[in-house]
Amino acid sequence: MGATNWQATVAWRGNAYVGWQRQPNGNSIQSEFERAIGALCGGDPVPVVASGRTDSSVHALAQIIGFKTPLPREVRALVEGLNHHLPDDISVIEAKPAPEGFCPRRWARRKLYRYRILNRMGRCPFRRQYTWHIRERLDEEAMHLAAQYLVGEHDFTSFRAARCMAASPVRKLISAEVRRTEDGEVQLEFVGNGFLRHQVRVMTGTLVDVGRGYRPADSIPQVLHSRHRDAAGATSPGHGLTLVHVEMGDGPRV
Amino acid sequence: MGATNWQATVAWRGNAYVGWQRQPNGNSIQSEFERAIGALCGGDPVPVVASGRTDSSVHALAQIIGFKTPLPREVRALVEGLNHHLPDDISVIEAKPAPEGFCPRRWARRKLYRYRILNRMGRCPFRRQYTWHIRERLDEEAMHLAAQYLVGEHDFTSFRAARCMAASPVRKLISAEVRRTEDGEVQLEFVGNGFLRHQVRVMTGTLVDVGRGYRPADSIPQVLHSRHRDAAGATSPGHGLTLVHVEMGDGPRV
Repeated sequence: MGATNWQATVAWRGNAYVGWQRQPNGNSIQSEFERAIGALCGGDPVPVVASGRTDSSVHALAQIIGFKTPLPREVRALVEGLNHHLPDDISVIEAKPAPEGFCPRRWARRKLYRYRILNRMGRCPFRRQYTWHIRERLDEEAMHLAAQYLVGEHDFTSFRAARCMAASPVRKLISAEVRRTEDGEVQLEFVGNGFLRHQVRVMTGTLVDVGRGYRPADSIPQVLHSRHRDAAGATSPGHGLTLVHVEMGDGPRV
Repeated sequence: MGATNWQATVAWRGNAYVGWQRQPNGNSIQSEFERAIGALCGGDPVPVVASGRTDSSVHALAQIIGFKTPLPREVRALVEGLNHHLPDDISVIEAKPAPEGFCPRRWARRKLYRYRILNRMGRCPFRRQYTWHIRERLDEEAMHLAAQYLVGEHDFTSFRAARCMAASPVRKLISAEVRRTEDGEVQLEFVGNGFLRHQVRVMTGTLVDVGRGYRPADSIPQVLHSRHRDAAGATSPGHGLTLVHVEMGDGPRV
């Protein structure tokens, strides 16, 4: 007994990749999966869909992907076979047969992103690929306060990339938390029903401006209302960002 | 006001290095420090001493080193200057003026080493450089039980590299703990007044034999008594090992 329609949970370290989506130049996570599934099935690359795209250098602890195999496969053979064909910095954590019509993009309900800032003088040899290093002390309480203005359903035009192609700039941010960890990091966690291109990174860059004292926490509503990218802060580096979790529904969003 | 005699706490990710000690072939941590201090002081490499050597690929969270600068330096300028000249995977965490006669090797009292085993089917893209991946389930309780036979003052001949040059094979292991973490690792922690070459890695390899059921926990005294390297298990890979902490005294050991 095996299946041909699959849902898999996958992780990767993004530093060496141009992001999820296939690109003319550079390795993408998507093309690595398409190649690996093809190699396992003894043929051409097999199309793979993810719950959403991620930028260059962004990591994933548990992205959800969907794909079909030409012939039925056992779960364990599929997971081990894919990991054999994937590079060391990409891994399938688990896989299960997917229901008919499964589409990770349209079935996704919520996503949790975490942005890690190493906020101390000294760098850390073990975290440089996963954190944005800011040496000056950030005011994480002001950042948390500022982040609360972003929570809710808003037009996030000010916080999306100029090249963002999404039809609507309206998204619902369900929660935003900023906290300092014991080992010298300021971490930002965002939960939303979906995010625009660069949205998490621009929100982070803008909240860092608040943490540095460059702009007050209560200036955020004005940034939202201006609906202009220039009103927000810089786009923070991709390698500090990790897609932590994707919550799936049991059918397409209505 | 500055100093010329220094004690520094340093960290590194060991994967790209042949170990602490200068070697004819390959980059060593020691030569990176000697080059960086020399570069900072505008001259030739400056000799650096560590509390002990570490093997190829072994990491350090807090190794203690000692060195002298030709001219007095301020603490902050020294730390930042060295980090500027060091590669990204090596970092000075802090530095302070050292007392006259300071020698990290002879002043060291205790060391804590941690060995990390990723003990689950799936690999992890974020931990492969820091863990030994063993897919079959280890019995960590049997390993912990076995480890207790190693605690105390013993002749560790069976657990040292054939090429180990230490005059005496007797060392005191102060504690040995084996535990399973929530994120799929089996971690071994060893505290001792000093360790022979490869000792932690051979102890780990032998305890893994116990965890796999290849040898019983109560066979360890026999391994110690045989005083022959062949009686113990394989040398575990260097990249799973981290020097976590070095406790310094206020003068040489007597």
